[in-house]
Amino acid sequence: VFLIDGIQTDLIDAGDRGLQYGDGLFETIAVEQGEPQRWPQHMARLQAGCERLGISLPDEQTLLEEARTLCADGRERTVLKVIVTRGSGGRGYRAFAGALSHRILSLHPRPDYPIAWQQEGIRIRVCETRLGLQPALAGLKHLNRLEQVLARSEWDDPDIAEGLMLDVGGRVVEGTMSNLFVVMDGRLVTPSLTNCGVAGIIRQEVMEAARTMGLACSEEELSLDDVEEADELFLTNSLIGVWPVREVEGRTYRVGATSRELAAHVEQVKEA
Amino acid sequence: VFLIDGIQTDLIDAGDRGLQYGDGLFETIAVEQGEPQRWPQHMARLQAGCERLGISLPDEQTLLEEARTLCADGRERTVLKVIVTRGSGGRGYRAFAGALSHRILSLHPRPDYPIAWQQEGIRIRVCETRLGLQPALAGLKHLNRLEQVLARSEWDDPDIAEGLMLDVGGRVVEGTMSNLFVVMDGRLVTPSLTNCGVAGIIRQEVMEAARTMGLACSEEELSLDDVEEADELFLTNSLIGVWPVREVEGRTYRVGATSRELAAHVEQVKEA
Repeated sequence: VFLIDGIQTDLIDAGDRGLQYGDGLFETIAVEQGEPQRWPQHMARLQAGCERLGISLPDEQTLLEEARTLCADGRERTVLKVIVTRGSGGRGYRAFAGALSHRILSLHPRPDYPIAWQQEGIRIRVCETRLGLQPALAGLKHLNRLEQVLARSEWDDPDIAEGLMLDVGGRVVEGTMSNLFVVMDGRLVTPSLTNCGVAGIIRQEVMEAARTMGLACSEEELSLDDVEEADELFLTNSLIGVWPVREVEGRTYRVGATSRELAAHVEQVKEA
Repeated sequence: VFLIDGIQTDLIDAGDRGLQYGDGLFETIAVEQGEPQRWPQHMARLQAGCERLGISLPDEQTLLEEARTLCADGRERTVLKVIVTRGSGGRGYRAFAGALSHRILSLHPRPDYPIAWQQEGIRIRVCETRLGLQPALAGLKHLNRLEQVLARSEWDDPDIAEGLMLDVGGRVVEGTMSNLFVVMDGRLVTPSLTNCGVAGIIRQEVMEAARTMGLACSEEELSLDDVEEADELFLTNSLIGVWPVREVEGRTYRVGATSRELAAHVEQVKEA
């Protein structure tokens, strides 16, 4: 089900710059009982992204009304995807000055991940596809996602929940669709996103929660060795919340107290 | 005017992975008297790109028939854009195995660049937006083009024909929509495309022509200093052929014999 610039249709203008150049941004939002979760955080990130890319920001009230219209379908748990593109037309890569952005909202079933993944942790792999280094796009949830598509195509095994991605310089950055945290030496570390990666909503929430809990938390460069030696490991995104990691390519981890505490915190925010 | 999977419409499925993830490739093809130019070269590049990304290759005969149908509009000179996306659907970044690609053909007026640009050369600038380093996508004409969009948004001056792009490591790679050649020490050099850049059809043609002419030609890493010290400079793509460069940010160049000879060669191939 799509709502495109307010109209119920699943067709878009083939001249849309989102298709032509990947010229846009998106948000993937958990929906509970028809209500989009963490809406202000998603809108803040979308707004920041539009500013960085020079895309006209859609009216937030309109977006919220459209989101609620689309989400009110009676299902308990769904996923709202909001795409904002720079609009249509222009001359080659050059956009028309003042081009009006397009908003493409769609509602999807929630992926049916096993409950055990949240409780007992997940098995993950290390992807061969690397993330390119591009500070100008780092942190943004933009539509240029070929790297993630290639990385996700590397495995079929349904028991492997996610794949870690390194950048071309060998630093561990994130999962194909999630952010990474490690607990090491009693503190929490998440990879810095200076050169690549997506600055996730839950990533931000976990960093803030850690500070509130008095747990040191920093953004750093991480190597595979750091991951190997970590005490705990977990992944985050808006749909999964927190997934503790119990195995990376044969190396096993315990699901520790820090992971459990932060997972509980994120769950609590969801219910609030 | 669009022809999408053989149907005349300008609307595409909003679930197309080209829009959702930039998951596809494209070709920009000069059309003369209704006939797409350098069709075999464009198809060879498209095929190589589909193989690298694991996208199902559309039937080439079908593509050619559709291209000819679209191009036969009586205009003398037009531009055919062929987009091939991985298709629709899948679960997040993961595509359905065996997904059928979509083909999106569109016909456009030829940009009305001044004739003088070909004869007397162009003025260009150096862009601030850098190209990220990503060997897995280097050379491909894929749909993840945010870097080019950002670079092309840096200037408005219609007298500046193109912008040079450096990679994040400071090497000169290409223009926003063209490949670069320099003549230095009596030989021809074009930047190597190991980490980024698009392997252009005319770039390949010029390299082959140089060899036929007995002119040494190599792919190397180039710095801005190399460009500054070069004897001649020119840019290439399928629509412009060869544009000699007469000025880069105040440094002027003569339009030399090598540029003229290779420009004439490319023009000749066009007419053949």
